[in-house]
Amino acid sequence: MTGSRAGDYRILHEAALRDYLAGQPDLAALLGGEPASWAITEVGDGNLNLVFIVTGGRAGIAVKQALPYVRLVGESWPLPLSRAHYEYLALSRQAQLAPGLVPALLHHNEALALTVMELLTPHIIMRKGLVAGTRYPRFTGDITTFMARTLFFTSDLARSAAEKKEGIAAFAGNHALCKITEDLIFTDPYRIAEQNRWTAPYLDALAASLRDDMELHVAISRLKLKFMASPEALIHGDLHTGSIMVTDGETRVIDPEFAFYGPMGFDVGAVIANLLMAYFASAGHERAPGERAAFEAWVLETVEAVWNEFSRKFLALWRTEAAGDAYPVSLFPGEKGAARLEAERQAWMQRLFADTVGFAGAKTIRRIFGLAHNIDFELIEDPKVRAISEARAVRLARTMMVETAKCPDIGSVTSAARELHNWMPEFSKDWGAYS
Amino acid sequence: MTGSRAGDYRILHEAALRDYLAGQPDLAALLGGEPASWAITEVGDGNLNLVFIVTGGRAGIAVKQALPYVRLVGESWPLPLSRAHYEYLALSRQAQLAPGLVPALLHHNEALALTVMELLTPHIIMRKGLVAGTRYPRFTGDITTFMARTLFFTSDLARSAAEKKEGIAAFAGNHALCKITEDLIFTDPYRIAEQNRWTAPYLDALAASLRDDMELHVAISRLKLKFMASPEALIHGDLHTGSIMVTDGETRVIDPEFAFYGPMGFDVGAVIANLLMAYFASAGHERAPGERAAFEAWVLETVEAVWNEFSRKFLALWRTEAAGDAYPVSLFPGEKGAARLEAERQAWMQRLFADTVGFAGAKTIRRIFGLAHNIDFELIEDPKVRAISEARAVRLARTMMVETAKCPDIGSVTSAARELHNWMPEFSKDWGAYS
Repeated sequence: MTGSRAGDYRILHEAALRDYLAGQPDLAALLGGEPASWAITEVGDGNLNLVFIVTGGRAGIAVKQALPYVRLVGESWPLPLSRAHYEYLALSRQAQLAPGLVPALLHHNEALALTVMELLTPHIIMRKGLVAGTRYPRFTGDITTFMARTLFFTSDLARSAAEKKEGIAAFAGNHALCKITEDLIFTDPYRIAEQNRWTAPYLDALAASLRDDMELHVAISRLKLKFMASPEALIHGDLHTGSIMVTDGETRVIDPEFAFYGPMGFDVGAVIANLLMAYFASAGHERAPGERAAFEAWVLETVEAVWNEFSRKFLALWRTEAAGDAYPVSLFPGEKGAARLEAERQAWMQRLFADTVGFAGAKTIRRIFGLAHNIDFELIEDPKVRAISEARAVRLARTMMVETAKCPDIGSVTSAARELHNWMPEFSKDWGAYS
Repeated sequence: MTGSRAGDYRILHEAALRDYLAGQPDLAALLGGEPASWAITEVGDGNLNLVFIVTGGRAGIAVKQALPYVRLVGESWPLPLSRAHYEYLALSRQAQLAPGLVPALLHHNEALALTVMELLTPHIIMRKGLVAGTRYPRFTGDITTFMARTLFFTSDLARSAAEKKEGIAAFAGNHALCKITEDLIFTDPYRIAEQNRWTAPYLDALAASLRDDMELHVAISRLKLKFMASPEALIHGDLHTGSIMVTDGETRVIDPEFAFYGPMGFDVGAVIANLLMAYFASAGHERAPGERAAFEAWVLETVEAVWNEFSRKFLALWRTEAAGDAYPVSLFPGEKGAARLEAERQAWMQRLFADTVGFAGAKTIRRIFGLAHNIDFELIEDPKVRAISEARAVRLARTMMVETAKCPDIGSVTSAARELHNWMPEFSKDWGAYS
């Protein structure tokens, strides 16, 4: 699936892309009709890449090309094209491990940092659906299968230590993408940084208090070190609701360019954090108070189900597919051994839960005080209303990061969220209108 | 420093080695005199390699060549020659970071898996000195400098995440050596395995009880996973007293062929475990009761000093040389920030201590029930006396691995060791003579 020589990179805008695709017989046949008739539209709304939808007489495809810089910022922030290689590698692995839950790969050109995938239609970015208040009945089942299988089967529980080390080495070169996470999630929101922004002036005091909160800084530093130096499994690395495309009946996880061997809780925490943000943002999208109550209840049920189902599926795999070098079954013989190993699996899962909760908190705070925000909050037009929703999310996030004893299980997280639904931050106390 | 083409490997016995060295002008000049006059002696007493001392008219050198199999076992257990590459890589890095504490590198031939180093003379293997009851006044200072500097400067506290990932990838291929550790230290001693041996019949019941001890199996499994998946720093990987050469005034750490990015506590724990074994073995080397009391007191003082000095030096480096991506100082501004970061450093060190204690326990048990034993115990001729010493060491080791709350600090470890000095295991109760 790899293409021409290194050094051949050029940005393919519409005309060049048309020529390139016309020169690939399989893709041209798939599209169908004359190349001149293909409709080509640039649709990338992410932060990093060009994304085209190309539609021919017979079918459509999605074409993703990495740019040598961060699209959100521009050429002043260069970013290696090699990320397309790691994305392709991760997508290939995920397709093996979680078939049907990632887009089908059609073509990859290493030199052009270009990947062609099936066109997902009528799928939409899940985050947009959540902003609109749409429920996705398949989501919990699909995302927990995706996470349980991709994380378990690339971990020490399923792989030999040698295979695991080869995997770590294969993704070690993706450090520029890791660095973005290290800076934008684990460092900048907690200090003065040019790229930070928040809903000013309402959250100015909260931003300052986070910068002054040394317990929180210890928590984020521990999480950062865990992110950097705990290669537990091949993680997606950016598993928010903007990296998930959905219909009522299907779920596809896209954009694994941040993939590397890291802590499992970072992926699970990303899903949970983004659901919690959808929950806190929901009130801001109501036309009438209480209008989205059923949707909000579904979101919190989904938070619980995501953890519970993920945990159940992961443990089931561990019980039946443990071919790795960790926790050898030969050390847990007989009934007594099996019982002790099962108790240890539960303890292990409890540690993963603690990581998950911490990372979920970190993923929330970065969306409110860091560079990259999300439309859950951003599309709330009234900045006062937005700030209240954000403040509620931040209050829970800090608890999740610092007061871990208050979050022993997923039910305690959703209870805390529910209790914050109508909580009014100090700065809003004299407004009176949002109780 | 690398030599001829891959595929040129051949085992260099005396005559071939003489020709090879004669063909290296620098080495021939260093040795001095006619090649025919050089004295060549094979001295390898390790488990894996050939080691020659070559002495010429002017000077001597040490030549180490990897064999394509485990020397201790034979050709039935193949082992990749690439370990010589990793040893060379580690030795080069250690020489930069801890100058004067590893042998000087004179020559390396990748294809022959051969490394030439300065001849350490009159240094002896420290373990031999400990068996003889010799104290080494320089040891604590040197080994703690070696560990503090090699571990700190290859960790996330000193390196960028990108450099760290490059380091991890550079050593990822050394997995065959890691596998030896995973099997022989973290698995086999706790189950029936052909290569296990112990001082039978005296320790038969203890061996069986360890195989049946599920709490211990959970502890060793957690340590194994930490060994496999916690690339905290470039560790030596085999830092027992047989990998340390000493005189009264000098210390040299040798044989880092097990080096890879792993948990720091594995190195520190190795030093402490081997000192504790020297302590428990000591009584077995006495000609008269109490004869070695002063030596034994020195050993336990050294255990305490190794941890305390290592900890002090590591923390001092963290305070002054923290150029890494972990715990950015920008998140801990002012007096309040500095105080909170310092408290976190202490908490971090406490976690490393817990790891160290656990690994030290694991390193002890493998020497008594696994494949590779050590002369501390093996040179005790009377198997009853040996078994008593070993049982004392095992009793402490189990506490260190399972009852971690009983070992909050290094003083509690040495106190527990002291209390076990005259402890008589059950199997010896009817002998009467060794109280």
